[in-house]
Amino acid sequence: MDSRPIGIFDSGIGGLSAVRALRQLLPGESLIYLGDTARMPYGDRSAEEIDRMTGELTTRLLRQNVKALIAACGSISCNAGKTLSSLPVPCYDVVTAAAEAAARSSKTGKIGLAATEATVKSGRFAGEIEKRTGQAVTAVPCPRLAPMVESGMVPDDPALAAAVAEYCKPFLRDGVDTVVLGCTHYPLAATAFAAVLGEGVTLIDCAAEAAKAAAEALKEAHLLAGGTAPAAPRYYFTALPPQPARLLARRLLGEDFTPQLAKPGDKG
Amino acid sequence: MDSRPIGIFDSGIGGLSAVRALRQLLPGESLIYLGDTARMPYGDRSAEEIDRMTGELTTRLLRQNVKALIAACGSISCNAGKTLSSLPVPCYDVVTAAAEAAARSSKTGKIGLAATEATVKSGRFAGEIEKRTGQAVTAVPCPRLAPMVESGMVPDDPALAAAVAEYCKPFLRDGVDTVVLGCTHYPLAATAFAAVLGEGVTLIDCAAEAAKAAAEALKEAHLLAGGTAPAAPRYYFTALPPQPARLLARRLLGEDFTPQLAKPGDKG
Repeated sequence: MDSRPIGIFDSGIGGLSAVRALRQLLPGESLIYLGDTARMPYGDRSAEEIDRMTGELTTRLLRQNVKALIAACGSISCNAGKTLSSLPVPCYDVVTAAAEAAARSSKTGKIGLAATEATVKSGRFAGEIEKRTGQAVTAVPCPRLAPMVESGMVPDDPALAAAVAEYCKPFLRDGVDTVVLGCTHYPLAATAFAAVLGEGVTLIDCAAEAAKAAAEALKEAHLLAGGTAPAAPRYYFTALPPQPARLLARRLLGEDFTPQLAKPGDKG
Repeated sequence: MDSRPIGIFDSGIGGLSAVRALRQLLPGESLIYLGDTARMPYGDRSAEEIDRMTGELTTRLLRQNVKALIAACGSISCNAGKTLSSLPVPCYDVVTAAAEAAARSSKTGKIGLAATEATVKSGRFAGEIEKRTGQAVTAVPCPRLAPMVESGMVPDDPALAAAVAEYCKPFLRDGVDTVVLGCTHYPLAATAFAAVLGEGVTLIDCAAEAAKAAAEALKEAHLLAGGTAPAAPRYYFTALPPQPARLLARRLLGEDFTPQLAKPGDKG
């Protein structure tokens, strides 16, 4: 029985959707979350910059004696391979599980990918899908979406709905039957995607798929804690999320969501 | 890039079949093997004893700074859950991957399991298969087989062939279409099983399946080493295997198989 915590990190609040899934799948695990809200969004940064910042986040979590990490962020998963591959503990990202789920779900092999600019530019996410379907992915960068969610906008906010409608045009044009929400912020706007794309299109939540795959992998690796009730999850942010985002997080995670400030150099 | 070695351990030489598979799948990885030849077989021991001995083996390998472990032994995989679940690094066993491969391979759902007494008694291996097929497994304890292989007997040795023919009777009686070789020594006698069971029965090599699953899991967890050529595998045994077993291992692993003695208390 390994009672060390699992660390989950993201550029901001997007990775909280992975926390929600993990709490349901692995209720016996202690979780530590770290969101780099002070420096979000990551999606318009260079791969080098994202990799360096990922090194800072993972160092901070490793100091908390985590047994495993989840990179709950599409931009990090696709651009920080150098850092993610040099960690002393297992680190799961959001790409492979979502690519597999998409390939499994799609009947026609026509799959769309909604993601940040950094993720689309890296080509990794689309590549992982394409190698499973043998067909080109319709990849759409959605630069405004993560900041909108981060500000606490809900899916029926008119500005957010309009942005999603615009971003979905290439998916409708190409007649995809599956769209991967390839940034962990986007599942928080999933109903806006569903409203535009209609019932015929399956949405793949990369955060939930990553949580499922990580839970399975940790079980297989004999790394789960025993049945004892763990400490409540700890939520650290490099800047406290604005009030609407905190409300969004409380709706997602329940009343025990209490964000704490992780100061630079702090152990948080 | 994580260049720490992967540790593979077994009661004796059986786990070398996992080493062979791993070398093919992950040529860039450093491997350390530990076989407890001085105390083999494990298959007729109690669960408590197997768990305690597993603790000694894993402690020894952890001192070598391994990044992951593979319990390349059916008896350990099924009886040392307590120790395997309290390790600070991922540890993969031979059960889940083989159970999945068997369920995938079988057309009729009628599956046989050849394993040690300790493995059959634990019920874990058969249980993992049964929950995937919904049908009862024909589980046969084969107590004499691992010691025969350990002594260096080849599959066409008349004594070994006769033992296998006897152990296979329940499989033929029940008309299974798949047999899991659920002890890592048995793949070294696979052709004896094939000769008795015939072409209509698929054999599942639990060592090779575990190696495949572990390779995939380590890749997913971002725990693989880079492309640099690793040191040659190191092979430690608590007693040097007899000459025929060494010849068997050389046929399996090539001329660079050089067993070293791991003395009690030694760092090996």
